[in-house]
Formats: sequence, structure tokens, C-alpha cells
Amino acid sequence: MVKLSRGVEWATHSCTVLAALPEERELSAEALAEFYELPSAYLAKQLQALRRAGIVQSSRGKGGGYRLGRPANMISLLDIVRAIEGPEPAFRCSEIRQNGPCALKKADCKRPCEIAAAFGKAEQVFRNALAAQTLDSLISEFVGNASPAHLMDMAGWIREKSG
Amino acid sequence: MVKLSRGVEWATHSCTVLAALPEERELSAEALAEFYELPSAYLAKQLQALRRAGIVQSSRGKGGGYRLGRPANMISLLDIVRAIEGPEPAFRCSEIRQNGPCALKKADCKRPCEIAAAFGKAEQVFRNALAAQTLDSLISEFVGNASPAHLMDMAGWIREKSG
Repeated sequence: MVKLSRGVEWATHSCTVLAALPEERELSAEALAEFYELPSAYLAKQLQALRRAGIVQSSRGKGGGYRLGRPANMISLLDIVRAIEGPEPAFRCSEIRQNGPCALKKADCKRPCEIAAAFGKAEQVFRNALAAQTLDSLISEFVGNASPAHLMDMAGWIREKSG
Repeated sequence: MVKLSRGVEWATHSCTVLAALPEERELSAEALAEFYELPSAYLAKQLQALRRAGIVQSSRGKGGGYRLGRPANMISLLDIVRAIEGPEPAFRCSEIRQNGPCALKKADCKRPCEIAAAFGKAEQVFRNALAAQTLDSLISEFVGNASPAHLMDMAGWIREKSG
């Protein structure tokens, strides 16, 4: 298959941590990196991409940190993938039908190539499936599966590190 | 989104050309490259990958060439994507939940991470959509949209170059 960058995994996990923040609290980029032992310079880039997409918001100044930019039920896996990987489609048609001994003229290529259209259709199905999965449904599943001790552990750490 | 390699586009187009071969005929790798003005060394690699997947077959010796390895209605876009990109999933979980101050123990991670599971579900939907699109249905659409002159042009070139 194709490959999603590691940043998608990191960003999604980090968003679930931010979703657990108490009201009015924030976590620094360093604390988020520490939570999963992620390289902080690279995670900082993902956080910037998430911020540009409105998925997280950040405050400036000493102790400035991150929190979700909107409720977790309004953040989908598609939002995160698009923020990190960009909006371009997976299949990028380079119009090779306009090359070679049987080349089509550009004027005869107003309709998309059947191959590009077929990939486009499958990608739309993929995007819809990613859009249907929201952060809050992921978190509900996680909470349902986790041990109470682990949840307490996480909540304690997040409360201690957030400001 | 993620990015499919250029080779997927080239391989899919080249398979549609092979599907148009008269019975018992073959096209050389060079002729296939010439048809869309593709870099022949790189296309040769895609053809090897398609051959390993049984999508094309090749004959050896002077004038040896390629033809489809099975009927076009038994070749899907998923077959081609897997042949070129490999069978690995797009989302590759690196188990970061086992890192950091609230790390889960490996023994407590028998169930897949909820995030990996959610991406896996969306990918399965994508794979199903790619699997539902076969080479012969693409070709039917192409033939339905193409001008008779262009089809004659292609058929003439393929007949001339195939052996």
C-alpha cells in the first residue's frame, strides 16, 4: 500500500492526550514529546501543522502550550491526515496519455483519464472512512479498553504537567 | 493524503496496453516504455514487480516480451498497487503507547492500539474499493469514451510493435 508518515501516528496520539486536558489547561510541546518519548523537534513540526489546520491551538509566552482547537467530536482522522500529509490526492495523474506515438491532444483530454478517475473514486471512499472516525470515538474506545489504574496514571501525569 | 508512487500510474497504463494485445502476441519492455515515453529502466522495474505478482508474464529470448498473466477481469487496482507498493499497511503502528512516563507494559498490549485499529478499518475500506475496480472495467470505460480514430491508432501501433 501507500505509507502514512510517522507524523500521522504521533499527531493522532498527541491529540488524544490533549483531549484529556482539564478545562483551561494546556500542555507544552516538550511535555507532549515526553509523554510518548518522541523527538521533540519533529513533533513540534507536526504541532505547527495541526495548528494551521485549527486542530490544536497554542498560547504564546512563558509556559505557553497546546490544547485542542475544537471539540474532539469535530476532529476526524481525515482532518489529522490532511493536516500532516497535505491535501493532495494519493494518485497524481501526470497525463501520460498525452505522450508517445498515440498521444491524445490536450484538447481531447477534458474528461479525466479513466485510470485517474478510478483511483480518485477509491480515494474518496478512503477519505470518507477516515472522516467518519472522530477523535472522541477513538477516546471512548480507549477508555473502555484501558485499566482504571492506567487511566488514573495518565490523568495524574497530565494534571501535573499541564498549566 | 498519502502518495502513490509514479510507478502505479505507469504500471496501470501499461497493463491496459497489454490488455489490448491480440492473442498470442507480446510487447517488449522497450515498446511499452515507448508507448507513453516512460523511462525504460524504471518501467522495467515495475514490469518485474508485476511479473512477480502474476499480473504480467514474460517470455525469454530474442524478441521476448510481456503479456497479461491472467484475464483483465481478474486484475484489480488493488493487485497493481500491492505489486508496486508492497503489501504493508499505510498506517504502521510503532507502539508508542509502550513509551514514556505512562507506558503500557507489552503484556497489556495484546489488543491493537485503538488508533492503529481505526486506521486499519479505513484502509480496509480503501483496499475493498481498489479491489472492486478491475482492469477490464477501466478498459470498457476507456473504449466507451475514446474516439474510433484513437482506438484504431492504438490498435495499429500495438499490432505493428507486438510479436
